[in-house]
Amino acid sequence: MTPTSSLPLDDPPVPPIRRRPGGRTSRVREQVLDAVRAELGERGYDELTVEAVAARAGVHRATVYRRWRDVGGLLADVFEAASEDGWQPPDTGSLQGDLAALNHESQAALTAHPPIVAALIAASFRSEEAARGVRRLWEDRYARCEVIVGRAVLRGELSPGTDARRLLIAATAPLYHQLVLLRTPPHPDLPDQVARTAVLAASAGAFTG
Amino acid sequence: MTPTSSLPLDDPPVPPIRRRPGGRTSRVREQVLDAVRAELGERGYDELTVEAVAARAGVHRATVYRRWRDVGGLLADVFEAASEDGWQPPDTGSLQGDLAALNHESQAALTAHPPIVAALIAASFRSEEAARGVRRLWEDRYARCEVIVGRAVLRGELSPGTDARRLLIAATAPLYHQLVLLRTPPHPDLPDQVARTAVLAASAGAFTG
Repeated sequence: MTPTSSLPLDDPPVPPIRRRPGGRTSRVREQVLDAVRAELGERGYDELTVEAVAARAGVHRATVYRRWRDVGGLLADVFEAASEDGWQPPDTGSLQGDLAALNHESQAALTAHPPIVAALIAASFRSEEAARGVRRLWEDRYARCEVIVGRAVLRGELSPGTDARRLLIAATAPLYHQLVLLRTPPHPDLPDQVARTAVLAASAGAFTG
Repeated sequence: MTPTSSLPLDDPPVPPIRRRPGGRTSRVREQVLDAVRAELGERGYDELTVEAVAARAGVHRATVYRRWRDVGGLLADVFEAASEDGWQPPDTGSLQGDLAALNHESQAALTAHPPIVAALIAASFRSEEAARGVRRLWEDRYARCEVIVGRAVLRGELSPGTDARRLLIAATAPLYHQLVLLRTPPHPDLPDQVARTAVLAASAGAFTG
C-alpha cells in the first residue's frame, strides 16, 4: 500500500466510483490528472505549472484555471481521485501473505520510474493541499486495509481484540521509513521481512489490550 | 533518536569532538549554523537565504559565501555538525526502557517549536545536499544506537544473533511514519507502545536468522 498505490500509474484500476466514465467532464479530468502525475514524476514539484499540465493534457489552460485554480488544486484532486478508485488490499489467504503482498506493492510503487509516488510524498512537504491530500489518502488506505486483520481474526490467526491500525502501521512503517526517510536502496527481502516481524509481534500479543 | 536529535536545539550537548571550542573559526561556524537552524525552524526552507542567515548570525555575508557557498552548503554543514556531537543513546538498564526513551526523545524533537527537525527532514526532499546529509546522519545515529542491542545481549535479554539494525528500525519506524508521513498528532503512549512491539517481536525471534 502506498498513499497512491491505487493511482492509475501503469494499468488503470477498476472503474472509479464517482466519475461518470465516458462523460466529457470526467474525460478532461482524467487527462488533466494524468498530466499532473506525469509532470510530477518526470520533472518534479518545482517545475509543476498549470501551463505545463494544460499543454501536456491537450486542454485549454483557461479550463484548468477555472476548474482547479492552481497547482495546489491540481494536487488536491490527484489525491482525491486516488481515494475514489476501487483499490482493495491483497487477499492471499494468510495474514503474513496479505501483509507481504501489500509491502511488495508499496516497494514497487516507491521505486517506480518515473517516481510518481515518491514525488507526491515529496510534494506533501511543500504544499498544504498536498499535505492534506496525503493525510486523507493514508487514512483511506489504512481503513481499507483493516479487512486484512478482520480476515485473520476470522481464520483464527489473530485474537478478536487486535488493534488493526497499530498492526498495519507496524507491518508497513519500516518499509516506508527505509525507502522514503532513510533512503536506503530497496531490497527484495524487505517486504516479507517487515511483514513477518509484525506477524510475530502480533502472535506475542503486541497489538491487544 | 532523530537525525538531528543531537543538534544543539535547546540545550547544547556535550562538547563536540572536531571543533576547537573557543577558536574564532569555530565560533563563527556555531553562530552561522545556529542561524540556519533558527531560520529553518521559524521560516522554513523556502525563505532560507545566505543573506538572512548572515544577518541573523551577525556575520558578514561575504564570510558565509566564502565558507559555505550557498544554502546547500549551509544545510550540509548543519547535518555534518550534528554528526560531530557526543550524542549517545539512552542507557536505562533494559531494552524496553532504552528504546522507549529513544522514542520519547524523537517525539519531543519532532514536535518541538520551532520545528527545526521537521524542517530539516522537509528540506531533505528539496535539496540534494540535505538529502545526502540526512542519509549520513541517520546512518550515524543508527550505528550509535547499536550499543542498545549489544547491552541487551549482554544482559541476556536478546540472543547474540540478533540483527541490531533491523530491530532498531522496527523499534523507531512507526513513530516517524505516524509523525512525519501520516502526520497524525503525537500521542504520549506512542513511544512506549512502538518500543514494546519491537521487544515482543524480538522475543519471538523476528530479528535472528
